[in-house]
Amino acid sequence: MQTLVDATRRKASALVAGLDPVPSRLPPELRDLSEVFATREFCRDILEAVEPYAAAVKLQAAFFERLGPAGMRLYADLVGAASALGLPVIADVKRGDIGPVAAAYAEAHLGVYGADCVTVNPYMGVDAVVPFLEEARRRNRGGGVFVLTATSNPSSGAFQEATDPPLYEVASKLVAELGRAGGDYPDTGAVVGATRPEVGRRVRELLPETLFLTPGYGAQGGDASGVHPLLDERGGGVLVNSSRSILYAYEDSETGYREAAREAARSARDELRRVGVRV
Amino acid sequence: MQTLVDATRRKASALVAGLDPVPSRLPPELRDLSEVFATREFCRDILEAVEPYAAAVKLQAAFFERLGPAGMRLYADLVGAASALGLPVIADVKRGDIGPVAAAYAEAHLGVYGADCVTVNPYMGVDAVVPFLEEARRRNRGGGVFVLTATSNPSSGAFQEATDPPLYEVASKLVAELGRAGGDYPDTGAVVGATRPEVGRRVRELLPETLFLTPGYGAQGGDASGVHPLLDERGGGVLVNSSRSILYAYEDSETGYREAAREAARSARDELRRVGVRV
Repeated sequence: MQTLVDATRRKASALVAGLDPVPSRLPPELRDLSEVFATREFCRDILEAVEPYAAAVKLQAAFFERLGPAGMRLYADLVGAASALGLPVIADVKRGDIGPVAAAYAEAHLGVYGADCVTVNPYMGVDAVVPFLEEARRRNRGGGVFVLTATSNPSSGAFQEATDPPLYEVASKLVAELGRAGGDYPDTGAVVGATRPEVGRRVRELLPETLFLTPGYGAQGGDASGVHPLLDERGGGVLVNSSRSILYAYEDSETGYREAAREAARSARDELRRVGVRV
Repeated sequence: MQTLVDATRRKASALVAGLDPVPSRLPPELRDLSEVFATREFCRDILEAVEPYAAAVKLQAAFFERLGPAGMRLYADLVGAASALGLPVIADVKRGDIGPVAAAYAEAHLGVYGADCVTVNPYMGVDAVVPFLEEARRRNRGGGVFVLTATSNPSSGAFQEATDPPLYEVASKLVAELGRAGGDYPDTGAVVGATRPEVGRRVRELLPETLFLTPGYGAQGGDASGVHPLLDERGGGVLVNSSRSILYAYEDSETGYREAAREAARSARDELRRVGVRV
């Protein structure tokens, strides 16, 4: 995790810019290119545009997987391009499998493709998380793992709050149990959305020292105040991801997509500062 | 699901052969080849070897993902090779994401790569499952989705039984709610392991009409009797996956890997028949 934390301090920014290249929303001037090439141009431009304001980037693996083997070459390319810009990469893969299977996924994303951190799904228990941690520890590059805990999507409540104790508490305990101290935060983080404040507050109680990766900010209707209950005692401990409101800022703007994305990233960083998110 | 069910009847077999090509266990005669090429030779040979006895094959995506973009070309190749042999393909991807992200994964595996069925992780609720079902329904090729419900790995109990009601019951309800009737079984199946008989029996009570995909059979110490509690009223409704005990049967055999895999598949099919699993 230290790689991420160092980047937030260097940039004085808690913002993670998410690369979710939805084909139908690529800028019109790129639509004559092949899909892989258009996605490549778009993503490389976005990386450069957001670099001054984002601490890190999150690549959504699905959109590259959908482009077949050429999409995975592009994914590798973009991890490299982000790293060359000094942006740590979170591979948003949400893989959830066990033993040698989880080890293969871990080697793929933290090794072959070279991301710093990954997101992992805990449905199969600790067996699903440990191989990723082992891989990150073995590489010893300050990487880590974010475990899905309380996600931000509409139907997550119905599933994650259906039991006693609620699922997000079970996941929180798993995160607390597996994290190894070392830097400013343990190497096992949690994905905690900004859309259910009571849930977020409870997860923070259970995980006072954990780094959170927080999606659901910046989408239609969301605002930075949703991040408040997630902050740790110091007012930090949260990396806030914004994807579509940065990538597709050009849709509501007079400027080109590069400039619009840069402005959106700057304003997201500033808003996070304004509401008191510390790095 | 009907594609799978038809195959079990045509082959008179409830066996799914799993392709989990662990590099360190590839046969010695292939180890001089590059890893991608060795994996390709091995998997193609195994597909031909098991074809007479397996109803379908399950490809474990992680082992191809670990080989980088060339591994994904191989994955595409093997889906094609299996289909050419008349073997329906279950893409064991266990993806779990939402909205356009889940739709991208669904398009990747059911579309670009051409699998018939996929495994899906329900941690993020119905949002994580519906896009896969929509893709399968849109393609209308008799495919479907298997939702992780009660998995077979050692640590799954600690997570899936930590709450009241247990997580596997919440997942069972989600499966029941989403499945659409049409063929012999609804198009939403469940992954239910053979290692926790009480849990399996309860999931079957909750899902009397659902097709189960059952891992954890054929590994060291497992036997076909663990499948019994999972059977439906008719004595069917279960597809049993065996991966390593078929793939690596050569390690305990005097014959080559092809012959050993073929024999292991035949004997697994026969044992499932003997304990009364109907197709």
